[in-house]
Amino acid sequence: MIDFNLYLITDRTQTAGRELPAVVAEALAGGVRSVQLREKDLSARQMFELALQLRMLTREYSAALMINDRIDIALAVGADGVQLGVGSLPVVDARRLLGPDMLIGYSAHSVAEALRAECDGADFVTFGPVYRTPSKLKYGEPLGLSPLAEAVNALHIPLFALGGVKKTSIEEVMATGCHGVAMISEIIAATDPLEAAKSLLEKIEKHATQH
Amino acid sequence: MIDFNLYLITDRTQTAGRELPAVVAEALAGGVRSVQLREKDLSARQMFELALQLRMLTREYSAALMINDRIDIALAVGADGVQLGVGSLPVVDARRLLGPDMLIGYSAHSVAEALRAECDGADFVTFGPVYRTPSKLKYGEPLGLSPLAEAVNALHIPLFALGGVKKTSIEEVMATGCHGVAMISEIIAATDPLEAAKSLLEKIEKHATQH
Repeated sequence: MIDFNLYLITDRTQTAGRELPAVVAEALAGGVRSVQLREKDLSARQMFELALQLRMLTREYSAALMINDRIDIALAVGADGVQLGVGSLPVVDARRLLGPDMLIGYSAHSVAEALRAECDGADFVTFGPVYRTPSKLKYGEPLGLSPLAEAVNALHIPLFALGGVKKTSIEEVMATGCHGVAMISEIIAATDPLEAAKSLLEKIEKHATQH
Repeated sequence: MIDFNLYLITDRTQTAGRELPAVVAEALAGGVRSVQLREKDLSARQMFELALQLRMLTREYSAALMINDRIDIALAVGADGVQLGVGSLPVVDARRLLGPDMLIGYSAHSVAEALRAECDGADFVTFGPVYRTPSKLKYGEPLGLSPLAEAVNALHIPLFALGGVKKTSIEEVMATGCHGVAMISEIIAATDPLEAAKSLLEKIEKHATQH
């Protein structure tokens, strides 16, 4: 059961010098209920230390903590799950290691990839990039709203729109029927992450489809 | 029980264009009984695929397969253990995930670090770099034989000398009382990995201390 519709993804290079846990704490205070630790350039040890800090914070706010790619780190810190992608362990193998209760999110960039992830046992999918993002090279060309709507129709598991979604585009994104939105910079780079999270959540919830 | 005294570490950039599994297969045919998959630049998925191939090969030769850093990949492919280091999950946390039977090797660069790893539950330690290696920047300045001998005396778990050990230096290395030698290029870059492994093993075993 995915009971959040704003999925915060970290990027400590976008905090303008603030400590990542401090920014995440603000976002949690603003109502965020799910955080993915995604810092691909860190060593396992550094990521583990950061994950421990975020685990404490997310517990405090009864929020979910997801770990990008590293199943071992997720298990070691008692995270709620992992976020996998094309470069990660296959979803079926991850499921064997994680057991039935831990969450598996999958970062899909096409309807076929999203369906494959669902078939293999993912609990939800992030789908994108919907819009052009500052880091567009990382995610490829924007897909736009129509593949998003197609994916929403094709999948039975919750789908989060990802990539360049801003407050002003939440309404059209949520109109596709997707479960929620995954965001990095709108919150991480915000001057006031608490207020940003609060107002984004308000807008997402207003336009959320009842499941 | 560490029943091997030549520990082969992979580096697919040193195979001169040959497929890594083919080179490892040669080394196994030459008598190698333990292989560490260490390809830090690969994605989890690529490393997983390679690990599956090496798992089949090492099974065929009743050899141990160790996975560098990624506990999740080691568990997913049914490896014998992991090789950890300063950038990995802490040894105590790794032990919790791996259970009592899987092996934990630790890459130590000082006596204190090696002792810490033993205290925390590592099964064996690689120690080095003993000599100057082509990739010296990666491992730091060579430590020489005397810290190696010191580490051998200080530790109760087996210790493998690592870093620039060649056939000609095996005798003086083994004279420190260390359990064995960890090698990359002497086998991986050899024109004939089978013959290289065979003659290195012969020399190591000749000079091995009985434990």
